[in-house]
Amino acid sequence: MSVTAPQGFTAHGVAAGLKSTGAPDVAVVVNQGPSKDAAAVFTSNRCKANPVLWSQEAIKGGSAAAVVINSGGANCYTGAEGFAITHRTAETVAELLDVGAIDVQVCSTGLIGLLNDREALLSGVRAAVEGQSPDGGHTAATAIMTTDSVAKEAVARGDGYAVGGMAKGAGMLAPALATMLVVITTDADIDSATADAVLRAATAQTFDRLDSDGCQSTNDTVLLMASGASGVTPDPDELTATVTEVCRDLAMQLLADAEGADHEIAIEVVNAASVDDALEVGRSVARSNLFKCAIFGKDPNWGRILASVGTTQAVFDPADLDVALNGVWVCRNSGPGESPDSIDLEARAVSVTIDLKSGDQSGTIWTNDLTQAYVHENSAYSS
Amino acid sequence: MSVTAPQGFTAHGVAAGLKSTGAPDVAVVVNQGPSKDAAAVFTSNRCKANPVLWSQEAIKGGSAAAVVINSGGANCYTGAEGFAITHRTAETVAELLDVGAIDVQVCSTGLIGLLNDREALLSGVRAAVEGQSPDGGHTAATAIMTTDSVAKEAVARGDGYAVGGMAKGAGMLAPALATMLVVITTDADIDSATADAVLRAATAQTFDRLDSDGCQSTNDTVLLMASGASGVTPDPDELTATVTEVCRDLAMQLLADAEGADHEIAIEVVNAASVDDALEVGRSVARSNLFKCAIFGKDPNWGRILASVGTTQAVFDPADLDVALNGVWVCRNSGPGESPDSIDLEARAVSVTIDLKSGDQSGTIWTNDLTQAYVHENSAYSS
Repeated sequence: MSVTAPQGFTAHGVAAGLKSTGAPDVAVVVNQGPSKDAAAVFTSNRCKANPVLWSQEAIKGGSAAAVVINSGGANCYTGAEGFAITHRTAETVAELLDVGAIDVQVCSTGLIGLLNDREALLSGVRAAVEGQSPDGGHTAATAIMTTDSVAKEAVARGDGYAVGGMAKGAGMLAPALATMLVVITTDADIDSATADAVLRAATAQTFDRLDSDGCQSTNDTVLLMASGASGVTPDPDELTATVTEVCRDLAMQLLADAEGADHEIAIEVVNAASVDDALEVGRSVARSNLFKCAIFGKDPNWGRILASVGTTQAVFDPADLDVALNGVWVCRNSGPGESPDSIDLEARAVSVTIDLKSGDQSGTIWTNDLTQAYVHENSAYSS
Repeated sequence: MSVTAPQGFTAHGVAAGLKSTGAPDVAVVVNQGPSKDAAAVFTSNRCKANPVLWSQEAIKGGSAAAVVINSGGANCYTGAEGFAITHRTAETVAELLDVGAIDVQVCSTGLIGLLNDREALLSGVRAAVEGQSPDGGHTAATAIMTTDSVAKEAVARGDGYAVGGMAKGAGMLAPALATMLVVITTDADIDSATADAVLRAATAQTFDRLDSDGCQSTNDTVLLMASGASGVTPDPDELTATVTEVCRDLAMQLLADAEGADHEIAIEVVNAASVDDALEVGRSVARSNLFKCAIFGKDPNWGRILASVGTTQAVFDPADLDVALNGVWVCRNSGPGESPDSIDLEARAVSVTIDLKSGDQSGTIWTNDLTQAYVHENSAYSS
């Protein structure tokens, strides 16, 4: 169900032949209303794909009647024809739904620099719109997969309303954001300003704290569409909590399916002077290939954690840091602490705790280990 | 010869038993004068090892009579005993040479958090000093190796004087600086201010532009010692050129011996608004695991280059970038350019050129590809 779990949404996914495997590659999610308020956040990468260039302008009106997504090609750096294809895709959906093209969000994912066949794509778009149904959420979630091994879907229910979501992404997972497309739906009755505030709060706590491989994508989009079909207008804080729950669920599904990963690693930085300091330190560790290799090798190598902490500008005393791995404080006061011998890194879940002893703020960054399978997957296949 | 190629230097390396393999692990390089002006640059990592904490204070006087280096343990985050060992190491060399401890630079490399056996280390230090000879450069260069597969040495000759150098480092190679220890010697007759200016100019153009795996070490040191034994005082610019030649030679040896690497990649950024912009863009590409995996897989995936360029704050128009791989302009005006089909990535040397079209400055960052062998080496062994 996922995106079609809330009332007022239909969806579908089809195979348009963009993927050489013949797998589904075009999805639509349509908001049947009664309202169509929406908000979106996009990659902060300055080299943005054509669908991002289109959608970030189109969303400025605060509404979206539908989103159309293709896998099998990122439509990024594909020249004038690339933007024309994105525009024509929006127009095609708009004509079929009898709305303005400006009310259609477009997302693409796949290889940068690859121009998809215009007619194949548009045929797929028409077929997807024609096939839309109130139980089409799963076919849509399947059609947006690239190197994902499973479709990612989530649903949460508030008091009288629901929030659903689907996501794709397995590599290029980095903050703000990643090769990651996410569609969140809700039947709550909210205006676009509320949708925007809720979405930004939710993504800041979830997708923005995912840093699988440090590589930032050109295509990331997280879209929230509200149909108002429940007739319920929740308290904004409660809605934020519900949307955050769906976003966190999807973020953890992305983390668990990251390319070639053997471990999911939560890096919690505590007693920081600010949340920004905590996140800067967490991210620096999440981007250390040496640390990530050590976790793959089940080696409790805390020196590599300290070496990364030391590259940041956060407030801390280099002579007074504590570090724990899976709860064992292997480094105390910047010297050897408890013996790492008892640490078992067999399980996929690994926790790192870094105590900066400089304040009362904290933050967690989630990442993966660096494995031979990651190198294989990203060297043997173009993506 | 290397560090003992210039007149006025003796050196030696011995096995002190710090390495479980029994390989040589303690080296000294002694400046016999007549002068002992010196300068050094150290890691910018805030988590600095004990020998760095010692040496950065000791060098402030502008002189060094000797440097003592151990492999087999980084002496970083080893508590009070760690700093005491560094201090005692300097004192031991000083007593044997009849100089002040402040005139002895200390360097260590190996695992962070590992405390070496004090007596084994000091016995090795005594043996190294006792064995010093004018042709001991190679034994010293061998004793500082860790995961290096070959000793790194270089010599350049100016007009009436010589510059020699040795280096170690195979991982944690990143700017400013890396798990990298370098000793440069010269028999030029210069004061310490000149030594400092020459060394900073040379390292800024060489070691600081090496970014093998983005991981910054806690122990990096580059030391320049001048004996004055040639009696020649070269023009500072000429000396800078000669020292830079030795530094570049050693930097390229480090790059070629980087852990598990299959390719050496030069990322040249041209027509940038500033050198800083060029280096920021080059470094962002050098740190993209996806790009580095693509080169390992011999895949001319220019989209991953653009995705990295887009994460920087450099001046450029995202809609007007050109990118070449091995001289083939695969991306023109932010769209597909020449066909990548003719690009052969079999050879170890790979060149990337990024034209920002925003000025007349340029800069090159050197890096390696990301291979399964790198992951294996850094997951199977602690370092």
